[in-house]
Amino acid sequence: MLQDVNLPFGLDEYRSRLAKTRVAMAERGIEVLFVSDPSNMCWLTGYDAWSFYTFQGVIVSLEDDPIYWGRNMDTQAARRTTWLDEDHIVPYPDNYVQNPEHHPMQHLAEVLNGRGMSNSRIGVEADNYYYSAKADQSLRTSLGRDDLIDVTGLVNWQRAVKSAHEIQYMRIAGSILELVYEHIGNVIRPGMRKNDLVAEILHASITGTPEHGGDYAAIVPLLPTGADATASHLTWNDAPMEKGAGTFLELAGCFRRYHAPLCRSFFLGTPPPEVVNAEAALVEALSAGIDVARSGNTAADVANALASVLAKYGIDRGGARCGYPIGLSYPPDWGERTISLRPEDTTVLEPGMTFHFMPGLWMQDWGLEITETILITESGPAECLLDVDRSVMVFD
Amino acid sequence: MLQDVNLPFGLDEYRSRLAKTRVAMAERGIEVLFVSDPSNMCWLTGYDAWSFYTFQGVIVSLEDDPIYWGRNMDTQAARRTTWLDEDHIVPYPDNYVQNPEHHPMQHLAEVLNGRGMSNSRIGVEADNYYYSAKADQSLRTSLGRDDLIDVTGLVNWQRAVKSAHEIQYMRIAGSILELVYEHIGNVIRPGMRKNDLVAEILHASITGTPEHGGDYAAIVPLLPTGADATASHLTWNDAPMEKGAGTFLELAGCFRRYHAPLCRSFFLGTPPPEVVNAEAALVEALSAGIDVARSGNTAADVANALASVLAKYGIDRGGARCGYPIGLSYPPDWGERTISLRPEDTTVLEPGMTFHFMPGLWMQDWGLEITETILITESGPAECLLDVDRSVMVFD
Repeated sequence: MLQDVNLPFGLDEYRSRLAKTRVAMAERGIEVLFVSDPSNMCWLTGYDAWSFYTFQGVIVSLEDDPIYWGRNMDTQAARRTTWLDEDHIVPYPDNYVQNPEHHPMQHLAEVLNGRGMSNSRIGVEADNYYYSAKADQSLRTSLGRDDLIDVTGLVNWQRAVKSAHEIQYMRIAGSILELVYEHIGNVIRPGMRKNDLVAEILHASITGTPEHGGDYAAIVPLLPTGADATASHLTWNDAPMEKGAGTFLELAGCFRRYHAPLCRSFFLGTPPPEVVNAEAALVEALSAGIDVARSGNTAADVANALASVLAKYGIDRGGARCGYPIGLSYPPDWGERTISLRPEDTTVLEPGMTFHFMPGLWMQDWGLEITETILITESGPAECLLDVDRSVMVFD
Repeated sequence: MLQDVNLPFGLDEYRSRLAKTRVAMAERGIEVLFVSDPSNMCWLTGYDAWSFYTFQGVIVSLEDDPIYWGRNMDTQAARRTTWLDEDHIVPYPDNYVQNPEHHPMQHLAEVLNGRGMSNSRIGVEADNYYYSAKADQSLRTSLGRDDLIDVTGLVNWQRAVKSAHEIQYMRIAGSILELVYEHIGNVIRPGMRKNDLVAEILHASITGTPEHGGDYAAIVPLLPTGADATASHLTWNDAPMEKGAGTFLELAGCFRRYHAPLCRSFFLGTPPPEVVNAEAALVEALSAGIDVARSGNTAADVANALASVLAKYGIDRGGARCGYPIGLSYPPDWGERTISLRPEDTTVLEPGMTFHFMPGLWMQDWGLEITETILITESGPAECLLDVDRSVMVFD
């Protein structure tokens, strides 16, 4: 580790993360874990760069320090952002990049061989964006083994309960997003081009606070209007926003890769009765969900509390989950891909868990989002990390 | 297709893309192609949403229209952004999302079965971010077949030569980035926090021009300073930019998902002799590369022309490729992942191909990037799509 690496957490915290991961590895009988999820890589080592578009990973064994393995030009990012020493940073040559003749996993197999790891019980994150079918096949062929073990989510599950320092980063991310919403309220006007609103949102999100600059969120702003708001994941266009339609804002504040998402909605003109009804339903249902989001209750309890209030208002979300854990993340998803707030998920909630409680409504002709980032506390209902009025903002 | 879908291209263009793709499928003996690369999905159907963090795809057969298959809540994005009719939009239920009990690929197998496609010769994009090892295994198991054919890049290769309309979008993206660089020149000052510069960059990128609003680039701004600039893919922090260090700016303009990247560098204070030498080398080497980037020459010719000028100045890029095709893209990469400008790649250049000619220098103590987006023309050297002074910007 270089003298001037500015790690977001102390070495103790990385060591304790590694220890937790090793316990989980041992429980699954894994001796060597190949971590390709960039969020898991960062959580374990500090590695932080937009290099995940080429193959890379962190090799975790039961005793030695983790090894960063990646494209030659990206090893410099490992030197600049991780606590690893030179012996634990391993490059592959650039002609392995996007070249059908040489797959990077062939090189990884050589590294595992060279370090005496190729006969170990090896775990991989087989259902991750950054571990393709071809990568898996290439690694198996190169190792001459067909018994790699899928441990998708093993590290993600260790991230579910946040440390005090992580929660502090999420609070900062939340304070940034509070300023963004304040700014939105000041600049929206009918006739404004949608992209011009996004420019304001991104400017405020990255400016952050005087003390803390903003980082990029793992998902860009989603803010469809009117009929487009029936679709959950549209981004934006450059059409003027006209009166007579609603728009939802799906945004997150981000600080040092830690996210605090929160959605609000606005209407240009007078909202129709079905939107007013849905707003009342969502606000009441959110409170009901937050009230049961307590240590010892389950993910399902939260989903059921929400659904029963919405049902009272005649609203059915069609089986869509209503939340997921959040924290450290890289594109394309800011969720942690472990727990889901849905009736089938009986995971028990623990203090320090953080969720985006996200009951989006995407109806036949319109959509509405009012959501919260919540923290499970020692006792009592969950704490909302942000303080933003839940009402639909109305602009005339 | 709904009446008010605002497709970026006419139906004729989509039909001609589909026809090209089918010729390539037939050449490979593929009857059914499962397309999971979001850029390929968009290129074929217009589909445009940030929904690629859950499994989705486009099923292309040799005769019937393509089928969008995705999470229930995202089928509405297919209705809002594609030319497909209702019979060609197929949802899977939300409890398949990030749930170890049900993989979406089990549902895809049912769809293929139901449409009489499960015994066809099926091609998949096995080396794509959005087609994980687990997805592949789940699809094989569910179909009871182990003979899926890897045709990674099949659609990407059809995208290499751009249509006039695509080039027009890239010119618009370029005109947006020209304004961004003009704005950067106006706002940089020593002591400015790095994130505040990024806020300005993103604001200008998304504001775009009075006629054309900006879209999000597939890669966020990369702009490391000083020793950090030895690493190619660092993003930013909130430290003030001090005098005595250089920073490179890796940025793209984006319009309706079409990219025009261009990198420039700046120095606060007086650049040291090695940076001045490298600047002269890069400017001369870029010209040499652009001059041989002609129809009929090869990708290797461009790489070799660049390298021989750099060698004259004593600069060795350590085998790193110096460019890649660009156009339509989604995160995490704005390249097309087909051709690489490197000595081993003998692909013949054709009119209408577009590249990010990208000879980044990441040296021992500093880094420098001066790059161009180029268009291969009918005759003569490549055309630069943007007009931005290549000099290192110096601020005192």
